[in-house]
Amino acid sequence: MYSKNYLGRHVIAVDAMGGDCGPESVVCGLSGFASPSLHFIVFGDAEKIHRYASGLPSGLSYEIRHTDIAVTGNMDVMSSIREGKRSSMGLAIQSVMEKEAMAVVSSGNTGLYMALAKIILKTIEGIDRPAIASVIPGKAGRAIFLDLGANAECDLKNLVDFAIMGEVLARSVFNKNSAGVALLNIGAEDTKGSRLIKKTAEILKETIDNYVGFVEGNDLCSGNVDVVVTDGFTGNVALKTMEGTAKYLVGEVKEAIRNDLLSTIGSLLMKSTITSLKNKMDPRLYNGAILVGLNGVVVKSHGNSDAIGFANAVSFTINILKNNIFDKIKKLLDRSSRYDLNKNIAGG
Amino acid sequence: MYSKNYLGRHVIAVDAMGGDCGPESVVCGLSGFASPSLHFIVFGDAEKIHRYASGLPSGLSYEIRHTDIAVTGNMDVMSSIREGKRSSMGLAIQSVMEKEAMAVVSSGNTGLYMALAKIILKTIEGIDRPAIASVIPGKAGRAIFLDLGANAECDLKNLVDFAIMGEVLARSVFNKNSAGVALLNIGAEDTKGSRLIKKTAEILKETIDNYVGFVEGNDLCSGNVDVVVTDGFTGNVALKTMEGTAKYLVGEVKEAIRNDLLSTIGSLLMKSTITSLKNKMDPRLYNGAILVGLNGVVVKSHGNSDAIGFANAVSFTINILKNNIFDKIKKLLDRSSRYDLNKNIAGG
Repeated sequence: MYSKNYLGRHVIAVDAMGGDCGPESVVCGLSGFASPSLHFIVFGDAEKIHRYASGLPSGLSYEIRHTDIAVTGNMDVMSSIREGKRSSMGLAIQSVMEKEAMAVVSSGNTGLYMALAKIILKTIEGIDRPAIASVIPGKAGRAIFLDLGANAECDLKNLVDFAIMGEVLARSVFNKNSAGVALLNIGAEDTKGSRLIKKTAEILKETIDNYVGFVEGNDLCSGNVDVVVTDGFTGNVALKTMEGTAKYLVGEVKEAIRNDLLSTIGSLLMKSTITSLKNKMDPRLYNGAILVGLNGVVVKSHGNSDAIGFANAVSFTINILKNNIFDKIKKLLDRSSRYDLNKNIAGG
Repeated sequence: MYSKNYLGRHVIAVDAMGGDCGPESVVCGLSGFASPSLHFIVFGDAEKIHRYASGLPSGLSYEIRHTDIAVTGNMDVMSSIREGKRSSMGLAIQSVMEKEAMAVVSSGNTGLYMALAKIILKTIEGIDRPAIASVIPGKAGRAIFLDLGANAECDLKNLVDFAIMGEVLARSVFNKNSAGVALLNIGAEDTKGSRLIKKTAEILKETIDNYVGFVEGNDLCSGNVDVVVTDGFTGNVALKTMEGTAKYLVGEVKEAIRNDLLSTIGSLLMKSTITSLKNKMDPRLYNGAILVGLNGVVVKSHGNSDAIGFANAVSFTINILKNNIFDKIKKLLDRSSRYDLNKNIAGG
């Protein structure tokens, strides 16, 4: 039961101290969320938070919970877990565990965030390892892509779990009855890929209704499938490669325009198009990844999020809460044939 | 000793039957290489090759070696090796082994090409597994990226070998005294990544003069390092993700221009800039990957190369021959401390 004080509201716990840009981007990022249906619990250094909070609109419903302890981006995960529990990040997660908040958002260190969330919230029954999932843009539509870096090493069960969670997430986020699930590989043929990938494909054929087979790196932006499953190493590299390639190309375009007068004039005429494209490709607008597989809604904002980026992570979180996505995932996971899956893997 | 008939020429064996576009793209791709310093031995179905060869310039020096057998893109590697040896691909590789040709170019199935090249040419002493390496574009300059898919699963020695070969290749291709070598990872900190990546980093610190540490997916197009090392699974996904992202963005730009009159006019003024950018990003211009670690120059052209793409793979091959890159690699590999490396790994 969520606290009566917030009855009917979506209550979101926010870690103000995570992220490279400090509490400014977090606090200012909340300014657009003045709504009677929302309440924020902001964890962190109260003095610093107050410094930026003076500019917030009067309709914004929030409270500040002070803590001196913050976890920094480069802390070693294992040694900082103890400290982390009492940090702004740890306390924010705690408030979800205590059912005070319905979701938590942080821009802090991903490894530590995942570790603390696992310790405090625990994983959903049957899931060994949570994954990081995000929405990626594509020509024919958006797709859920996971794991984006929570698990540098994955086994068969992890990958199958990711496929199940991704499928449920895609159905909920994209509001579809059926979501096409693909496995990222280095070729479309059955003979391609590592032994783990081939074995995973065998199991997915049996366990996922709408398993569509292998996709390759160049299919990621096609949007032809709803879910792309991979291990956290490959997923992280692929996602960052997408970001890097887009940044490189935009830089090349700018450079080319600067060096040519006609192009400079042309680019002025194209201003609205360029702006809309820039917006479309702005990684801040895709900010917000969900740590799926945990007993709670845990949203990760990019480490270097500015206020706009953080605001988008909050919007992403509100969308998850409004669509009741977490309960849907839990329900569908309960229904999915976990025992058959375990039998299949054991027999594999 | 290379055959006296071709004295002073660069002799290149060409598999006319590999690739999705058939002999047309291969044969037409040769049309720009009429030069007294070049000779091509074209392997494949003589009748089909003759059909397209009629349009070739008179100054082009080439001969056709007929074979009925061709390997197709989807053949299973293991079962088709026997057949493959007598195919246009196998015979073209054979001509390098017999020192008739100095290099071989094929657009055929990568797995089979690698398998046949390993069987026929053998690997350079000390190298267990050859890798596929290619040049990728970047903001600050180009970089050698390997492995791009030859080895879906890699161990410590494979990755260290790739780093050594990549370093030598980069020094030769970019004509530098020292090449900065980086390892692709999911974070820049020492604590990030799989156990294999962490262990590889430890060894590279000791064995590579200019080892610069971890890079992430978004650094691939920065061009800040000369060599990026990864396993064949991650490398293949990253390379194809670069291609797919570029294609997606270009498509979005086209779409946006079509829907806005001012932008359409603007884009006409920008035509020269757009053309030069399109050229810069054209994957056909980066066509040509080298299978490093073999006793011979083995160049892979993209499976769906058209004539322009194939011509670029041939240019890439000629560049390797002109710069005597293969001999440089062998020499530098001999010099590099293979024994110390083996000791390090065994002790690790």
